[in-house]
Amino acid sequence: MINEGYKAMLGGKSVIRELSEYATRRGAEIGYENVFDFSLGNPSVPAPDDFTRTMVDLYEHGDPVAIHGYSPSLGIPSVCATIAELLNRRFGVPYEAHHIFPTTGAAGALSHAMRAVTKPGDEIITFAPYFPEYQPYVAGTGAKLTVVPADTANFQINFDAFEAALNANVQAVLINTPNNPSGAVYSAETLTRLSAILAAKQTEYGHDIFLISDEPYREIVFDGGEQPYPARFYSNTLTCYSFSKSLSLPGERIGYVAVNPRATDADLLVAMMGQISRGTGHNCPPSSIQLGVAKVIDETSDLSVYETNMNLLYDALTSLGFEVVRPGGTFYIFPKALESDATAFCLKAKEYDLILVPSDSFGVTGHFRMAYCVDTEKVKRSIPALERFVREQYGR
Amino acid sequence: MINEGYKAMLGGKSVIRELSEYATRRGAEIGYENVFDFSLGNPSVPAPDDFTRTMVDLYEHGDPVAIHGYSPSLGIPSVCATIAELLNRRFGVPYEAHHIFPTTGAAGALSHAMRAVTKPGDEIITFAPYFPEYQPYVAGTGAKLTVVPADTANFQINFDAFEAALNANVQAVLINTPNNPSGAVYSAETLTRLSAILAAKQTEYGHDIFLISDEPYREIVFDGGEQPYPARFYSNTLTCYSFSKSLSLPGERIGYVAVNPRATDADLLVAMMGQISRGTGHNCPPSSIQLGVAKVIDETSDLSVYETNMNLLYDALTSLGFEVVRPGGTFYIFPKALESDATAFCLKAKEYDLILVPSDSFGVTGHFRMAYCVDTEKVKRSIPALERFVREQYGR
Ligand SMILES: Cc1ncc(COP(=O)(O)O)c(C=O)c1O
Ligand SMILES: Cc1ncc(COP(=O)(O)O)c(C=O)c1O
Repeated sequence: MINEGYKAMLGGKSVIRELSEYATRRGAEIGYENVFDFSLGNPSVPAPDDFTRTMVDLYEHGDPVAIHGYSPSLGIPSVCATIAELLNRRFGVPYEAHHIFPTTGAAGALSHAMRAVTKPGDEIITFAPYFPEYQPYVAGTGAKLTVVPADTANFQINFDAFEAALNANVQAVLINTPNNPSGAVYSAETLTRLSAILAAKQTEYGHDIFLISDEPYREIVFDGGEQPYPARFYSNTLTCYSFSKSLSLPGERIGYVAVNPRATDADLLVAMMGQISRGTGHNCPPSSIQLGVAKVIDETSDLSVYETNMNLLYDALTSLGFEVVRPGGTFYIFPKALESDATAFCLKAKEYDLILVPSDSFGVTGHFRMAYCVDTEKVKRSIPALERFVREQYGR
Repeated sequence: MINEGYKAMLGGKSVIRELSEYATRRGAEIGYENVFDFSLGNPSVPAPDDFTRTMVDLYEHGDPVAIHGYSPSLGIPSVCATIAELLNRRFGVPYEAHHIFPTTGAAGALSHAMRAVTKPGDEIITFAPYFPEYQPYVAGTGAKLTVVPADTANFQINFDAFEAALNANVQAVLINTPNNPSGAVYSAETLTRLSAILAAKQTEYGHDIFLISDEPYREIVFDGGEQPYPARFYSNTLTCYSFSKSLSLPGERIGYVAVNPRATDADLLVAMMGQISRGTGHNCPPSSIQLGVAKVIDETSDLSVYETNMNLLYDALTSLGFEVVRPGGTFYIFPKALESDATAFCLKAKEYDLILVPSDSFGVTGHFRMAYCVDTEKVKRSIPALERFVREQYGR
């Protein structure tokens, strides 16, 4: 018999998807180049040429039975070793191949990490603003997601609210840095304080609390900065990574969980994720893509366009009088709306073919998100539209 | 805190995987060509050249942002349309694109199909012998798997046992044809009788009973035969398919669920599967592979070697006095062992470097499975080893 629970979920469509579908329809009417579509986090720059060349070479010269054969259920060993070596070299954490579990993107990584360290009924804490898909990810595990209110001054962590939310039922804390939607990069200070609180609470509650660190935007940091590596600050860290944004391969579904070798039961966790896979039909990411990504592990797409776009928008928004925290990375910006009802604000913007996402589904009111993974030329053309919108609707 | 349930599962490794790992270790000692490894169902023939050419063309001439971009959450529409058209043309079932849900292989297909039509606590019936991964697949949904004893005379369905097992809590019935491990192809007669029973029970219980039909071996049928298409026999059928074996792409993770347009709520089920995906981190299969497979939708690898191998083994086994049902398809054969303890039998065979899988994990005692997706030349060389084993151990 049809599962009524999933049937009921059909109403709850993603706001972002709906806006993006609207933008596509509107594009069919007036030309998509005239729709200032800032709805979706789909990379706008191509995968590196080296990746393309590597894949062509694999297809042309590799043994198809080997390239396309089943990946071992814990990932292709050489690929895991390459990723471990990279993380070790870049961040000085002594991963070995058996601490790396290749997954179908960050979504796959998060779903395994959460199941590995919680059971149904447990509580997972995350911080607003947060990626809305965390709701279905956590619901799928049977755990309960608690959202700590935002630090709207700078989108680091609201520690008072965090400490108030902590309780013995919390088995995992989920962070995302650089952050979707705010663009904030958690500082070393934030990570130090977070780690100290978690360490103290582990002792107080007498059980492990795992930090699940979602890092698909690790490579997109501005002003020549770097994202401090959360696992360096806290032993019980499961790092969830994706090549979706760094190599512009979101559709190919490739990422990993890296288990901190200092975590409790570090040597068991990847094998447990293999067991979790069997029950969700996850399986490993595509074998050829595992091999291809490992060959270009030190590269990224040309990500500089995102910084160019950020600066253009940040300057335009501030000069229009928006309150906005300057993003440290990602391809998102999260200004305060010009009225308290973010949905009303975004509806008005739509009249100017500006597709902005209201902040409510990110767990914050009165803001909006712009995803500026679009051509710089379009960003430039959107600025007069923004100006007209703000002048005509808000008299600025 | 670590999930103790998954930790406890670490003991329960797959017998097939263990044997395959043993074969690899033994190969390192004596040369893998000397190990008669019949353990694993990994295709031994390459993907079609046309697939390779199509992929090279995509990589060399396609727009990387489009090829590798996020697939819509219900699959790439043109790919779904191509699959629907193929099924319609081959089997005369009027699928439309929105009845097709692309998945990461048959594993992904089954995990969505099961969740769509059952809820935790429901019962799913399957038939011995069955693919052992059905246990974790079903356990992952929270439903309960009931295994109907085998019809060991011909590995069709033991209908008396099936009717005895049916009860109002059964919401889905899971079949696999052509069958792993028996090689049996369910006949039109079997499917007609199964469908009549299910239809009568739907009326009696006052609720739908879905047929989940697992068909990764649909294209591997011997003697010029065809697998009768289960969805033609029963409206409430969810067909689960994989390109793993037909195109020799098991590592690339590509398949689909096809929802019979005549099923209850047929027009909702694919959208529900999209919701299910969000909670398991499944996401769509890799975008480039979706596109590539759609371009060679009418092709298969050269599958003839499996029939050659089957005939060689069937003749050898029967002439050695084994009781064996001649496979109608797949690349498996499932003879009766020469003693009632299948594990003891397979342990003895190991001494002759014959890697056979005991039948117990398939839900049948006293049989063994040989996966003959290996070079024909190795099959030929294995026959003297088989003869020596049977003569020395069983005096035949
Ligand atoms: C914060 C965050 N986490 C996870 C994901 C999912 O990433 P992937 O598509 O690689 O699974 C996204 C995608 O946009 C994201 O923004
Ligand atoms: C009967 C059966 N169902 C499902 C599967 C899983 O198929 P896939 O690897 O395409 O997910 C297999 C794989 O061997 C199988 O034999």
